[in-house]
Amino acid sequence: MPVFEKNEFKNRLKRIKEKMDEEGIEVLLATHPANMNYVSGYDGWSFYVHQGVLIFIDRDQPVWFGREQDSNGAKITTWLNDENIIGYPDDYVQSLIKHPMDFMSDILKDLGYESSNIGVEMDNYYFTPRALNSIKENLPEAIIKDANRLIPLVRQIKSNQELKYMKMASRIVEKTMQTAIDVIDEGVREGDAAGKVYQAQISGTKEFSGDYTAIAPIMPSAERTTTAHLTWTDRKYQKGDVVLLELAGSKYKYHAPLSRTLYIGDPPEDLSDIAKVVVEGLNKTLDFIKPGVTCEEVEQKWRKSISGSKVVKESRVGYSYGLNYPPDWGEHTASLRPGDKTILKPGMTFHFMPGIWLDEFGFENSEPFYVTEKGCETFVDFPRKLFTK
Amino acid sequence: MPVFEKNEFKNRLKRIKEKMDEEGIEVLLATHPANMNYVSGYDGWSFYVHQGVLIFIDRDQPVWFGREQDSNGAKITTWLNDENIIGYPDDYVQSLIKHPMDFMSDILKDLGYESSNIGVEMDNYYFTPRALNSIKENLPEAIIKDANRLIPLVRQIKSNQELKYMKMASRIVEKTMQTAIDVIDEGVREGDAAGKVYQAQISGTKEFSGDYTAIAPIMPSAERTTTAHLTWTDRKYQKGDVVLLELAGSKYKYHAPLSRTLYIGDPPEDLSDIAKVVVEGLNKTLDFIKPGVTCEEVEQKWRKSISGSKVVKESRVGYSYGLNYPPDWGEHTASLRPGDKTILKPGMTFHFMPGIWLDEFGFENSEPFYVTEKGCETFVDFPRKLFTK
Repeated sequence: MPVFEKNEFKNRLKRIKEKMDEEGIEVLLATHPANMNYVSGYDGWSFYVHQGVLIFIDRDQPVWFGREQDSNGAKITTWLNDENIIGYPDDYVQSLIKHPMDFMSDILKDLGYESSNIGVEMDNYYFTPRALNSIKENLPEAIIKDANRLIPLVRQIKSNQELKYMKMASRIVEKTMQTAIDVIDEGVREGDAAGKVYQAQISGTKEFSGDYTAIAPIMPSAERTTTAHLTWTDRKYQKGDVVLLELAGSKYKYHAPLSRTLYIGDPPEDLSDIAKVVVEGLNKTLDFIKPGVTCEEVEQKWRKSISGSKVVKESRVGYSYGLNYPPDWGEHTASLRPGDKTILKPGMTFHFMPGIWLDEFGFENSEPFYVTEKGCETFVDFPRKLFTK
Repeated sequence: MPVFEKNEFKNRLKRIKEKMDEEGIEVLLATHPANMNYVSGYDGWSFYVHQGVLIFIDRDQPVWFGREQDSNGAKITTWLNDENIIGYPDDYVQSLIKHPMDFMSDILKDLGYESSNIGVEMDNYYFTPRALNSIKENLPEAIIKDANRLIPLVRQIKSNQELKYMKMASRIVEKTMQTAIDVIDEGVREGDAAGKVYQAQISGTKEFSGDYTAIAPIMPSAERTTTAHLTWTDRKYQKGDVVLLELAGSKYKYHAPLSRTLYIGDPPEDLSDIAKVVVEGLNKTLDFIKPGVTCEEVEQKWRKSISGSKVVKESRVGYSYGLNYPPDWGEHTASLRPGDKTILKPGMTFHFMPGIWLDEFGFENSEPFYVTEKGCETFVDFPRKLFTK
């Protein structure tokens, strides 16, 4: 039932264990649902309770632990043997007197790892200070190390099978973006347009349907386009609206994010000018990207491409992305910004996202791409321009 | 632009400050997006970066801090004066050398709270061990206290305006559930049914559209119904499928969750039997609920109602819910289970959810309800039964 061959999981584990060895980590606790999925295949919306996958430097298979009612989900979706799937009783859930990480510590004691070097994710939505305290109290002889980026750094480089799923997600986002541009018009209620966008995302194509995306469709209009993360309202679109569309497709939780901008009516000159500058800058930057250049060099190229124009962009212009769960499809490793010296390698995947949010309106035109042996390829085939209605 | 009157926010703050006073907390850092929204009105999908709202025992207005590109979103959606909205530069985002909580500590220093008693959320998706370490390092004279449940306990009791939004969400979930039951049938691809469910959720009713829900539609079929949190696939429904539907509506991020079960074909006798027992037990339990009884008494009533039947239910049968963001619409305060001595009060809202997941299939029939002066009222008008096709 997992969507990858066992061998692919074993190869991932091998690369993860190499890094564990380098960093002196004997047991790695993965609680981020994308990290859990990456090593085990586990795929369920159960990340709102504490759960995790334990990777041992000297054991063949990881151990999944989670809420008892989700353990059948682990049996269905992972490649792990049943004895490596361990459910905890329901009274651990949101209890004031016991914590699921107490249970996890018991697993480590049973297996003889109570005084090991344990890697945990110190800056991740799914690992809390109370979880950390539980481990420290239950395993006083363990040494806790920060391994927040260990698995994400391995996830950066995609296999062909992963790229295949990201391409499937790209077909979905093309359809989704076209749907948005088709349905948004003067007099249409924003929520009705959003409903059709969601349907396109999930129904997908004739060949395959889509999965839920790690970020909801971001589709503000008018004044709400002056900021980055607002969604729809009960308002009806009006002539003169700028509409930002940051949408995504997802297949097996592999993403394809894409941004475009729509103007209802004849766009003001300054918006058309910004669109032209951004798209030209984007094109020039994409031509420049190849293995061996660094993230900060990519940003520098972009900055040079738009210099002399009125466009000012203070925030990062992109980030690595791929397999993920709410609340973010970004991998939290490499960013296209000054100071990021990550060297681009074949198989890395980025969302190049030069979003502009001014005090009157915003403009977005992004491209997801993957690094190839000689340069880069964009995932999505969709016109790069300011759309008008 | 906030969806509540200023007075409602002030009343919430008053109740929160009373609790802060009781617990000796001078500054409360709310990072959970529902807690942030509850005190400030802030509503944006920016919770994938560190942000928060600071509540001061001796200041009138809270302070919102977050990523600079989201500060216009705070100006648009909150009731706070502009000087209480503070954006941090983009290079704090996912940086290895600085942390947004360093910036937050600087705000506290500027305002003279560097040696205060500070309450933080110790077991919340949006507050990490690294965030806590940053505060400890930057404010060595501060005393850090766990205030994980402080705001959620205030959120438990809903105002009339909040109940109104939860009733709007209930109209949406009725339509959504009906859509699911209408479209699911032999030969239909699961993802296509899910697409229509999403559209119904978001398009809402003629009068108002819906918002994104804190949990994706949970709608497993066949073998996948033996566990609690799986979604759809590319598979086509077949005769003999059990389909679990745990769906929700959301308005202004106030939820209405609802579960029903659909069988394609003539249901096996044991499934029909379970359905009968569960619905009767649910009805009896709802009749019993009134202010003054405790959560564990509600669960006990349920347990007695099904005793003598074949139904076994090990996990909790419900939880308080309301305003929320991904990954959960539950409030993580009261649970309907043994040991929970929370006394029911008017205005509390629960999802009564006696989900049954056996080794061959599952059955779900839930009801969201609110406690009234004399008993309880269910939010949703939808037949309680096993649906068949």
